[in-house]
Amino acid sequence: MSSPPRSPALLTDRYELTMVDAALRAGTADRRVAFAVFARGLPAGRRYGVVAGTGRLLDALADFRFGDAELAFLEEHQVVGAETLAWLADYRFAGDIRGYGEGETYFPGSPLLVIEGGFAEAVLLETLVLSILNHDCAIASAASRMTAAARQRPCLDMGARRAHEESAVAAARAAYIAGFEGTSNLAAHARHGVPSAGTSAHAFTLLHDTEEDAFAAQVAAMGAGTTLLVDTYDVPSAIRTAVRVAGTQLGGIRLDSGDLATEAFRARALLDELGAHDTQIVVTSDLDEYAVAALAAAPVDRYGIGTSLVTGSGHPTARLVYKMVARHDGDGTGDGAGDGWVPLAKASAGKASVGGRHWAYRRTREGRAVAEVLRPSPQAGPDERPLDRVLVRAGEIVGVEPLESARERHARSRAELPEQALRLSPGGPVIPTEWV
Amino acid sequence: MSSPPRSPALLTDRYELTMVDAALRAGTADRRVAFAVFARGLPAGRRYGVVAGTGRLLDALADFRFGDAELAFLEEHQVVGAETLAWLADYRFAGDIRGYGEGETYFPGSPLLVIEGGFAEAVLLETLVLSILNHDCAIASAASRMTAAARQRPCLDMGARRAHEESAVAAARAAYIAGFEGTSNLAAHARHGVPSAGTSAHAFTLLHDTEEDAFAAQVAAMGAGTTLLVDTYDVPSAIRTAVRVAGTQLGGIRLDSGDLATEAFRARALLDELGAHDTQIVVTSDLDEYAVAALAAAPVDRYGIGTSLVTGSGHPTARLVYKMVARHDGDGTGDGAGDGWVPLAKASAGKASVGGRHWAYRRTREGRAVAEVLRPSPQAGPDERPLDRVLVRAGEIVGVEPLESARERHARSRAELPEQALRLSPGGPVIPTEWV
Repeated sequence: MSSPPRSPALLTDRYELTMVDAALRAGTADRRVAFAVFARGLPAGRRYGVVAGTGRLLDALADFRFGDAELAFLEEHQVVGAETLAWLADYRFAGDIRGYGEGETYFPGSPLLVIEGGFAEAVLLETLVLSILNHDCAIASAASRMTAAARQRPCLDMGARRAHEESAVAAARAAYIAGFEGTSNLAAHARHGVPSAGTSAHAFTLLHDTEEDAFAAQVAAMGAGTTLLVDTYDVPSAIRTAVRVAGTQLGGIRLDSGDLATEAFRARALLDELGAHDTQIVVTSDLDEYAVAALAAAPVDRYGIGTSLVTGSGHPTARLVYKMVARHDGDGTGDGAGDGWVPLAKASAGKASVGGRHWAYRRTREGRAVAEVLRPSPQAGPDERPLDRVLVRAGEIVGVEPLESARERHARSRAELPEQALRLSPGGPVIPTEWV
Repeated sequence: MSSPPRSPALLTDRYELTMVDAALRAGTADRRVAFAVFARGLPAGRRYGVVAGTGRLLDALADFRFGDAELAFLEEHQVVGAETLAWLADYRFAGDIRGYGEGETYFPGSPLLVIEGGFAEAVLLETLVLSILNHDCAIASAASRMTAAARQRPCLDMGARRAHEESAVAAARAAYIAGFEGTSNLAAHARHGVPSAGTSAHAFTLLHDTEEDAFAAQVAAMGAGTTLLVDTYDVPSAIRTAVRVAGTQLGGIRLDSGDLATEAFRARALLDELGAHDTQIVVTSDLDEYAVAALAAAPVDRYGIGTSLVTGSGHPTARLVYKMVARHDGDGTGDGAGDGWVPLAKASAGKASVGGRHWAYRRTREGRAVAEVLRPSPQAGPDERPLDRVLVRAGEIVGVEPLESARERHARSRAELPEQALRLSPGGPVIPTEWV
């Protein structure tokens, strides 16, 4: 049922495979390494990021196998040699992955995931890990700003048509984590349990001989609790028709054009005049977090958000990287810390990073987050809560959780941030990252 | 093998289903209508758009069925009633679709697709059609600017990690249509035949005890014709090591950081000094069409482009709409034209459109495009070439063509545009759209 591709193993950059091939030949494929997934910075102006995609990644990892079809392709196109084909046929990730809980907020340097294992088994996951997290974190980060701007009013994802058909499903899921009430997308409902909603489009009105016919047909099928689209022709006359057809128990009207604040005030006044005091006003039409905030004083009951949500409101990718941060030396000497791990960092201009494995903690003061603390060993300081969860242990996927858990985690994590986190004005990360 | 989901039927907004449900109950579901897919305008500053996704849509259409799993979901969640479930179980699109050839350039109002059929069967396709075309056209439109800026130098898609894992595959395909040489993405190669390429990342160098060990391992596996990544530590010493290890027949070096123009000049001088005159220089690192243009004078042989490509270089969606433009009146009277079709248009503020079915032509003068001509009947004027292809005839998919045909069509179509089409400075559509 609209299920995702069976094996995601080829959703991968070719160089992951050629590196495996070369490392196997050189005898370095099994060297134990640690990769970390992190953002060097947040998108310009953003005060926090939101982790999403972890659950999708664990699902994909369970299916990450090279079957006959994948192996035949790799052989035919000489992507790797025979020894590597045999190695891939037996591949399953047997290492460890820990990472931020889905829904958690994050900051520059936050290690969203730490993947430890042999070089070859771990590098193979790079592209897929980044594809999933870069997309889903970008959407959740934008969505969180929208739900914050909407305060208690529900937001509904309506962006499917403005995104690739599969990324639309992931976007609905990420938005739900970040507080959206639901989605227009049925596959997101079927696959991920995100509540779906939807009533009608302008075409439905145009199909019928009169607007009244169209409204009557919709009410006959869906009941008076439905939401009628009232801006195909003239809004005030459509509202009168809607209430005449559905009665004052009409569930809602939708406004999809014009100056939405002005239209909402007019519509509310007219609905009240007609006695439809409980009829909700749903607005749609190129909304983003700024437009939502600007409608705070208008009598709007819910927001339908499309393009801006599924394109990350100006930042369609989270720009996370997957970097090798440490290598195990095999004899336990390492960097002198006694655990055998040697921190690594490249020196490329403008792309230098902090090497070594880190464990992450959120330091709070009186219940408010004050710093993101990254430590070289797993040990919380005072007033620090750990941000890591064990996701995969020796190849066994142990971190699967219900989507609701991620949604609740996000609500808690965002509520814990300093108040200025929710400002839409441009700003830097709302708490500093400390490498201690 | 990394195949797309089997049935795309739920990759759909819920309201498409509820409209079908209401129309079936009202007896209006079979009214014959025409939908058109078009852009109200191009993204700000863009001079032309590029059609992509048509081939993917035809593939998806072949699989667009409601099977047991989809029907069970719709029933369980009471999306539609029993009569509609029965109708959906038998659903297959039996109407007609014509549209622009994939790879063709387009302008505001260009009817990229015209879908004719019963209301219910045609409205059901809305979300999927828009998801596919909005994404793929956005990528192809950005990619075309990049290949134009690169002139004869090849561009390679490396964006998989910065996009949803499935949209990355579609992006590689769209970029290929718009002139990219290939992709890093193996699934795009396996599914669509887009040539793939890739060698190694910084992690491969960091894995080994020395840069020389890493280069030697890569050359042992892939031969001297490989491309070595030389900016993990110090570029000049890496280039010397690379030529020492691989010889002067080294295929290429890759620069992924720093000021790429400066680095390319230095690298070329050093390679030439070392006798590696044929070693190519590949540059990557946040390139977009402007960066590519700025490197025109630098000794660069090919460009690897990632983030900016897969996010549409600032315009991640083409903002195409799927609008009902005409309704057949059943008795052949229509609007007096004698064919029974009545043009339709809603009056929503700021979203009005030209109603009626149109056939599209590109008018040329001395081999150069001078106008996009949209006519209410299929009849070419002088010096006008038709832009429509028949894609689906009475439900039979007849428009499938090889990907190479779309790539060649794009090259021809772009070459026919006025020269200023290729300028990167902001401008309006390079030819006017005329409704005649």
